[in-house]
Amino acid sequence: MNKENTNQPHQLKIVSLGGFGLVTKNMFVYETPKDIIIIDCGIGFPDEEMLGVDLVIPDISYLKDKKEKIRGIILSHGHEDHFGALPFLLPLLPKVPIFSSQLALSIVERKLKENRIQADLRQVDRTRTLTLGDFQIDFIQVTHSVPEALHIYLKTPYGNVYHGSDFKFDWTPIDKTRIEVEKMVKASQEGVDLMLSDCLRSEREGHTESEQTLVEIFEREISRAKGRFIVTTMSSNISRLKTAIDVSLSCGRKIALVGRSIIEIVKIGRELGYLDLPENMEVDSRKISNYPDNKITLLVAGSQAQSGSSLDRIASQTHQDIKIKTGDFVVFSTDYIPGNESSIQTVIDSLMRQGAQVSYMDISEDLHVSGHGARGDLSLLINLVKPKFLLPIGGGFRQMKQYSLLAQIIGYQEDKILLPDSGDMIGVAQGRAKVIGRFEARNVMVDGLGVGDVGNVVLRDREILSREGVVSAVVMLDKNRMQVIQEPEVLSRGFVYGQIKDGKEILSLAQKEISQIIKNVRKDSSVRGLKIAIQDSLEKFFYRTTGRRPMVLLTVIEI
Amino acid sequence: MNKENTNQPHQLKIVSLGGFGLVTKNMFVYETPKDIIIIDCGIGFPDEEMLGVDLVIPDISYLKDKKEKIRGIILSHGHEDHFGALPFLLPLLPKVPIFSSQLALSIVERKLKENRIQADLRQVDRTRTLTLGDFQIDFIQVTHSVPEALHIYLKTPYGNVYHGSDFKFDWTPIDKTRIEVEKMVKASQEGVDLMLSDCLRSEREGHTESEQTLVEIFEREISRAKGRFIVTTMSSNISRLKTAIDVSLSCGRKIALVGRSIIEIVKIGRELGYLDLPENMEVDSRKISNYPDNKITLLVAGSQAQSGSSLDRIASQTHQDIKIKTGDFVVFSTDYIPGNESSIQTVIDSLMRQGAQVSYMDISEDLHVSGHGARGDLSLLINLVKPKFLLPIGGGFRQMKQYSLLAQIIGYQEDKILLPDSGDMIGVAQGRAKVIGRFEARNVMVDGLGVGDVGNVVLRDREILSREGVVSAVVMLDKNRMQVIQEPEVLSRGFVYGQIKDGKEILSLAQKEISQIIKNVRKDSSVRGLKIAIQDSLEKFFYRTTGRRPMVLLTVIEI
Repeated sequence: MNKENTNQPHQLKIVSLGGFGLVTKNMFVYETPKDIIIIDCGIGFPDEEMLGVDLVIPDISYLKDKKEKIRGIILSHGHEDHFGALPFLLPLLPKVPIFSSQLALSIVERKLKENRIQADLRQVDRTRTLTLGDFQIDFIQVTHSVPEALHIYLKTPYGNVYHGSDFKFDWTPIDKTRIEVEKMVKASQEGVDLMLSDCLRSEREGHTESEQTLVEIFEREISRAKGRFIVTTMSSNISRLKTAIDVSLSCGRKIALVGRSIIEIVKIGRELGYLDLPENMEVDSRKISNYPDNKITLLVAGSQAQSGSSLDRIASQTHQDIKIKTGDFVVFSTDYIPGNESSIQTVIDSLMRQGAQVSYMDISEDLHVSGHGARGDLSLLINLVKPKFLLPIGGGFRQMKQYSLLAQIIGYQEDKILLPDSGDMIGVAQGRAKVIGRFEARNVMVDGLGVGDVGNVVLRDREILSREGVVSAVVMLDKNRMQVIQEPEVLSRGFVYGQIKDGKEILSLAQKEISQIIKNVRKDSSVRGLKIAIQDSLEKFFYRTTGRRPMVLLTVIEI
Repeated sequence: MNKENTNQPHQLKIVSLGGFGLVTKNMFVYETPKDIIIIDCGIGFPDEEMLGVDLVIPDISYLKDKKEKIRGIILSHGHEDHFGALPFLLPLLPKVPIFSSQLALSIVERKLKENRIQADLRQVDRTRTLTLGDFQIDFIQVTHSVPEALHIYLKTPYGNVYHGSDFKFDWTPIDKTRIEVEKMVKASQEGVDLMLSDCLRSEREGHTESEQTLVEIFEREISRAKGRFIVTTMSSNISRLKTAIDVSLSCGRKIALVGRSIIEIVKIGRELGYLDLPENMEVDSRKISNYPDNKITLLVAGSQAQSGSSLDRIASQTHQDIKIKTGDFVVFSTDYIPGNESSIQTVIDSLMRQGAQVSYMDISEDLHVSGHGARGDLSLLINLVKPKFLLPIGGGFRQMKQYSLLAQIIGYQEDKILLPDSGDMIGVAQGRAKVIGRFEARNVMVDGLGVGDVGNVVLRDREILSREGVVSAVVMLDKNRMQVIQEPEVLSRGFVYGQIKDGKEILSLAQKEISQIIKNVRKDSSVRGLKIAIQDSLEKFFYRTTGRRPMVLLTVIEI
């Protein structure tokens, strides 16, 4: 990469602090020589190797020397992977205004309040252009799996960029959202140099179905429910909750909300008029037994079988209020997020074994529609906005690649479609967009109260501990005579149960092993040399006797 | 459960030692008062909670006092989840003959040889009835994703049972296997009391496609490959390998085998005439660069992205021989086994980033056909065999349930379909089949050299270690004066990186914490009380300062 390009002043730079090629952890920096705006500030989820990690957040070290240039943060919509890192990152950033739609700001406000963080939240006026330094910003309403989602159109002295965050074209949305398609056309008339576009469903042919289709599906499902109707979906999906509530009310069922995330989103949805749930039709989940089963609908959080969620506890029979019984009818109105399939299937099995009838995607594909556009939607956006260059976001590399192949079918040259690597920087100038350099984007991991204090060494150790367990050995050494003073203390966790091998206790064999090593060592050895010898032969001893390699924590006390 | 029923002599008992409601770990005991035969002896795979566990095997404690009754072991086909536990369990069982088809026995023989285990392997003659004690046994050839799969029809004085292990009705199989449908009809004419049937795909409508459809698909895919054609599939799927080899040879491509499991199965497939791969058309995978890319096909093991498999190493650029390059065309001819999706997607992303074009199920659903029958196949078997009672096997509870709903549509009363729990025992007598009692079936876990020495305590500890890490603290105590002699030694692994909190070292703060506790303790306290106090306040200290709960291994040395 040409380092000069990066520092070339007359351009607009675009950096993904969460990394390109990811679905979550959205955070984009748009930077001119004078000003910076940030779009989104989302969390990501730990992958399988990140043992014990709660969350992953974007790495803002790129902004270190540039904080005074930041003019504002814009949030595209109210999903955690687009705003959830604010509580961690706002304290590290200068106090700048945060712009978004009313709904997204309501959700964010609640989250920030929980974390006792003050912020300058400003609802956008979609009828006006917002100016922040070098940026002239238009907001374009689109449809997604949460209402009031926005696309963001940025005009700068160096080029115009259309930021097409998560969307689909739903012409009959449940929440009556109008897609501001005329603004897309207007942008195309002004000339868009580069469009970033959601690409998550670029592998799917056709158009993503309308949320409206779920009304009929829920009517079908509820008619099959002889007893309680139990719905689980992503808690953030207000439209889906509305459908479940509307259909239930029309059948004369009262609604019980189960799980904190559901209770909170329903509260916000009611306040903003998205949900019409009369007070007298809501029932406390501890009082549902006062009503006939066929007059009750439960909306339950935990559709991804998240450990500890309400649904997970119901399935494992540890929920304090809700017990499954014969006649319960459970609907999973959700996709399986990759990595969650086994847990979801375990939950489905448990619910069934306890007597529930369960409807789920493997038997009825129509129980869920995605909030992301398929190839038809993606093509339509390209044709409306007509950008010179394209950059797929919000998907893995294989979805970026499919987006690129789709754009080539539409007529784009391959070199007009950027498929950057995670830490690539994009430059826009003189009607061209290209990769101009790199920066290092790390995974910043959140674990308990710690942010960024879990690194690769800790993760590698956790991985070994998870497979092999740990042995602690304490040796008291008379260092003058190089002799042990007491029998070594050896204890283990997560290693072997019973610790018996061929009738002998492994840990007492290990004690003998240590004593033997010390006996055999030369009297003039160093303590350090002795420690290495003990560590080494204990590791070999355990592998020889058990085929495992527990982590050995050796403490030698010199007296 | 009525305990008397279990001991009632005049019946046939059926016990699943691996547990009902599972896809893998197949092992069934058929027991009359005089005799026992065993069908299958397979491994299972550890679930997410079984950290560090290599395999799970059936629990044979049920057989403990009955070993002299065992007349033989019958293997339905040559898949690991039907025979893979033999190396662990044969040494614990009396030496009885093992019956199966030629192919399955070839695969088993190789496996046993690796483990230096002798066995009495006997190829079945499908034209004759085998008598083992009370059992008259007929073998019925069916189609599956490996050739020479068998259904097993058992006649006993107490009732007749049809054991319908993994199958589909493939009337045009690639290996020319004829399904012995006339034997199914014959069994129905003799009167089958109970049929156990594969139910894995009971959620899918229609008939499972023929393996033959893959020939056209592979021709389509190979025509898209400008460079090397790289195929990955389940190594045991000889038919799929045959299709990949045949199509490649007809395009003038030479074949390189990558990965031990592929090399072994191809050897067996050649010996038995299933694979026609001339010596001069096979290339050592280290010498493929001697040939033009478009004259090479690679068959690579690791289609489930198993850690350490050839494909995994190729994707992570750690394979010694094979490096991906632009022009490579990779075909995933496989389903995703639940739980493996994320790893497979990571592998696909990596291959693409390195320049390969990749075909996979999300973009082409026709790249794989299952070896298990869908609802059409399952219905056909029911209609051919016409058993009085049904018992779905080889699927989770939700697939068992769908099988039951299917059978009810066909006309079975619900009480004629048994959906047993894991440890249920089934009794067959006087034309009836029912659950007659329970036995305890544990998960027997294999870890390293140990079989069954990893239990729940070890797993729970590993789970904590994996999330929170470990801290070892060593305190030297003058027990007469209840004073520390030296500064306590504290070390950690997998806990925090750098171990700094607000500018202070957490571990040195922990040392001070320990000294403080000891100072505050009453001089007449017991050492045991002191240990509990230190353990408790260290755990609280770490949670307070880091939000984590590392496992604390405390050693107090009394001097």
